[in-house]
Amino acid sequence: MPRTLHLALHPYGVGGPGQHGLWKDPRVAKNASIDIDYYIRQAQAAEHALFDALFIVDSQFINATYPAHYLNRLEPLTLLSAVATHTRHIGLVGTASSTYNSPFNLARRFASLDLISGGRAGWNVVTSFDTGTARNFGLDEHLDYATRYGRALEFVEVARGLWDSYEDDAFPADVARGVFLDPDKLHALDHVGEHFSVAGPLNVSRSPQGQPVIFQAGVSEEGRDLAARVAEGIYAPGGTLEQAQEYYADIKRRTAAYGRNPDHIKIFLHGGPVVAATDEAARRREREIFEEDNDFDRNLALLGRSFGAYDFSVHDLDAPFPDVAHLAEKGGRTGAAKLIERARAEKLTLRQVAESVNQFRRSPFVGDPRTVADTIEQWYDAGTLDGINLAFRTEEELNLFVDGVVPLLQKRGLFRTEYTADTLRGNLGLPVPANRHARERALAAG
Amino acid sequence: MPRTLHLALHPYGVGGPGQHGLWKDPRVAKNASIDIDYYIRQAQAAEHALFDALFIVDSQFINATYPAHYLNRLEPLTLLSAVATHTRHIGLVGTASSTYNSPFNLARRFASLDLISGGRAGWNVVTSFDTGTARNFGLDEHLDYATRYGRALEFVEVARGLWDSYEDDAFPADVARGVFLDPDKLHALDHVGEHFSVAGPLNVSRSPQGQPVIFQAGVSEEGRDLAARVAEGIYAPGGTLEQAQEYYADIKRRTAAYGRNPDHIKIFLHGGPVVAATDEAARRREREIFEEDNDFDRNLALLGRSFGAYDFSVHDLDAPFPDVAHLAEKGGRTGAAKLIERARAEKLTLRQVAESVNQFRRSPFVGDPRTVADTIEQWYDAGTLDGINLAFRTEEELNLFVDGVVPLLQKRGLFRTEYTADTLRGNLGLPVPANRHARERALAAG
Ligand SMILES: Cc1cc2nc3c(=O)[nH]c(=O)nc-3n(C[C@H](O)[C@H](O)[C@H](O)COP(=O)(O)O)c2cc1C
Ligand SMILES: Cc1cc2nc3c(=O)[nH]c(=O)nc-3n(C[C@H](O)[C@H](O)[C@H](O)COP(=O)(O)O)c2cc1C
Repeated sequence: MPRTLHLALHPYGVGGPGQHGLWKDPRVAKNASIDIDYYIRQAQAAEHALFDALFIVDSQFINATYPAHYLNRLEPLTLLSAVATHTRHIGLVGTASSTYNSPFNLARRFASLDLISGGRAGWNVVTSFDTGTARNFGLDEHLDYATRYGRALEFVEVARGLWDSYEDDAFPADVARGVFLDPDKLHALDHVGEHFSVAGPLNVSRSPQGQPVIFQAGVSEEGRDLAARVAEGIYAPGGTLEQAQEYYADIKRRTAAYGRNPDHIKIFLHGGPVVAATDEAARRREREIFEEDNDFDRNLALLGRSFGAYDFSVHDLDAPFPDVAHLAEKGGRTGAAKLIERARAEKLTLRQVAESVNQFRRSPFVGDPRTVADTIEQWYDAGTLDGINLAFRTEEELNLFVDGVVPLLQKRGLFRTEYTADTLRGNLGLPVPANRHARERALAAG
Repeated sequence: MPRTLHLALHPYGVGGPGQHGLWKDPRVAKNASIDIDYYIRQAQAAEHALFDALFIVDSQFINATYPAHYLNRLEPLTLLSAVATHTRHIGLVGTASSTYNSPFNLARRFASLDLISGGRAGWNVVTSFDTGTARNFGLDEHLDYATRYGRALEFVEVARGLWDSYEDDAFPADVARGVFLDPDKLHALDHVGEHFSVAGPLNVSRSPQGQPVIFQAGVSEEGRDLAARVAEGIYAPGGTLEQAQEYYADIKRRTAAYGRNPDHIKIFLHGGPVVAATDEAARRREREIFEEDNDFDRNLALLGRSFGAYDFSVHDLDAPFPDVAHLAEKGGRTGAAKLIERARAEKLTLRQVAESVNQFRRSPFVGDPRTVADTIEQWYDAGTLDGINLAFRTEEELNLFVDGVVPLLQKRGLFRTEYTADTLRGNLGLPVPANRHARERALAAG
């Protein structure tokens, strides 16, 4: 099978988690995260470079300690809809929580984006990392893992049911016969489940790709199970090569175990590459970035985000890392558990843990264009990834990657030299799901 | 005070309520209602004509008997966001239900649209006409009037609170001092009310117009009260000149009674004008439209929509109009009550009522450009409207109005000859609401 790498762009605006100093960079506009023209430019640059998708993460909770980009940014679907009409090929993946949305409204918005973009919409299903989100939606406490992931699975099933409300030939719009809609091709859903009751039908028809592509982000046991059942793409955190291999193999195995084709789930690793003219310059730039972002109070707050926006400053910084495992049980148990384990194994103080949170985010893709292309190839061949979700600090660094690394990946046959499809499914090599009612009809007809 | 008429455009796609034959018109693209380019063209034509706003209505429920345009259309905010980047002056008003949304998510989406459009967003608050919507959101029954309108009021209050989360100078982004956000200018809401508990803050800052403009559509006692309390614009049904005068005076009186400036609520009447080269041709066109749209079964279904998608075909068509008042209690009591009253007063059969539903929608603005301009002027001077929400069957008929009627309105000093503002508030002559926290701070400082 030919090697096929997929690339997505994850715009960081004025600075995501850990990028505390990014907004100070003179090349970064202070309003980037709320400027639709910034996103349109990013999408057009990514499309020019033949990327598969623009990928927008999200949260429905902030406080004043949050990353600059999170404090003030555009809601993902509103954003992507504006971007859609300024692009033609690139996929548009928006993050939305299955915990704090309702299936009818969300399915409808993604279906609308899918029509507006001509079949380029993707939904990154998350169960909400930020526990404080609950209090923006009338709940005292974030739902627990079992409830959140049970709800996520049912949510996706309902959305997919709604997306099949109309068969593809439901609208003959036949003037001679006076038939706009063929009512036999409109289907209610009548879903009644543990978390949702949704009658349907949805008032939006299918796009050229049939249904939006389902992505998922979440690394717990529950998250992996959800991905294996329903996801067609994953935003995965990465880590070491060995961790990424374990994750990749595990997801593909689980997916096959559910009777699905493991090629039909594309794993995108997070990777904020650092590219420069020489390896030495890239390493220097990496150290420089580390210094720019080095802000102890913000690192402490970032650490707190993994524990329900917990305020660690109440603890003695130089005492052993406090016992806060219970605080992570709701929000991001898996990432938090790793932190706790490391603190215990290496006998770290709170200060040391806080100082190291940013190190966790180091990209494996650092060097001159050739080194970065080599490393990507090596990781691809080692079975760690199908794609990379690339994040760049500035538009210049995006261009360095596009002009320096992409041509090398193309030369090696890893990356496309032109778009072969106009839909996200087409570019990802994912099948168009047949409408379930049309399928049943075909089966019944023999 | 100078006379200032406001104009909005309400695109009908393949045909809204009663326009049963519109999709058959060869000038109407069969996919208009799901084609973003159709909406962009409509918005650009309306902007070229200096209109105040594009106005998008909505519903979260359909069945196969629904108007063609409702069956399959784009979600309003996704739609308007795409339109925003292709226009510069025109307001973008989207309908969204306060009954089947959550305040945090909806406030955020409107705030995002407001930023994307540079301060041109408006929210038409409805409580959902279609009772069947309930079953798409896990409820067996539509909420009753008191609950729906109580919820609507609290919803708007919460949204406005969230929209003030950031003071206008919350982001100094001062590199020298290392201050991106001034945390004193970020405010949680901590709202706890009868219908909602929302902690906040919202993760979106204010636009150049401060907050999205609140519109309202709903004519009951409860609807009028809500409008008088919080609305800055109204989409009103019209009716006879006398009915419109009564409504207009009543709203302005109620608004003043709440201590508000009655000029700060703009009443838009629904009006689908019929313009032609001569009065005679316009009347002929009106009859032609009536014939095109004449479809008894669809009229019967349309009638049913006012009574919770009730299937009237189970009744004897030639018996007196059945006693169905209780069915209207939840969805659209006020319009339905008018129908029932008329049926009783004129002793109409079910068939006669169904045959007449489309007559209700006749526009007062029919004739050659001069007659239409005269009638608009007459209605304006009679105190029936501040604006008109114009709906046209085809792009040609929109152009007839723009080229024929608008210049006459301009000559009479009724309508602008150029945009004087880039925000919706600016064009409507509405004040920019000061941020509540900045106001308090100013008061405290004396
Ligand atoms: C790479 C990655 C990206 C994620 N992006 C988001 C996001 O944008 N918004 C969000 O609420 N959660 C996000 N999540 C969090 C997950 O949805 C999940 O809630 C969280 O990781 C806790 O569940 P887990 O233990 O299964 O990972 C992300 C997780 C990963 C691993
Ligand atoms: C001119 C006009 C336009 C309306 N547009 C909508 C709409 O787009 N979506 C909706 O659900 N309801 C719409 N409504 C309905 C109202 O929101 C309200 O639910 C309904 O009229 C019943 O309440 P009422 O008796 O107060 O009018 C509209 C009402 C009027 C008068």
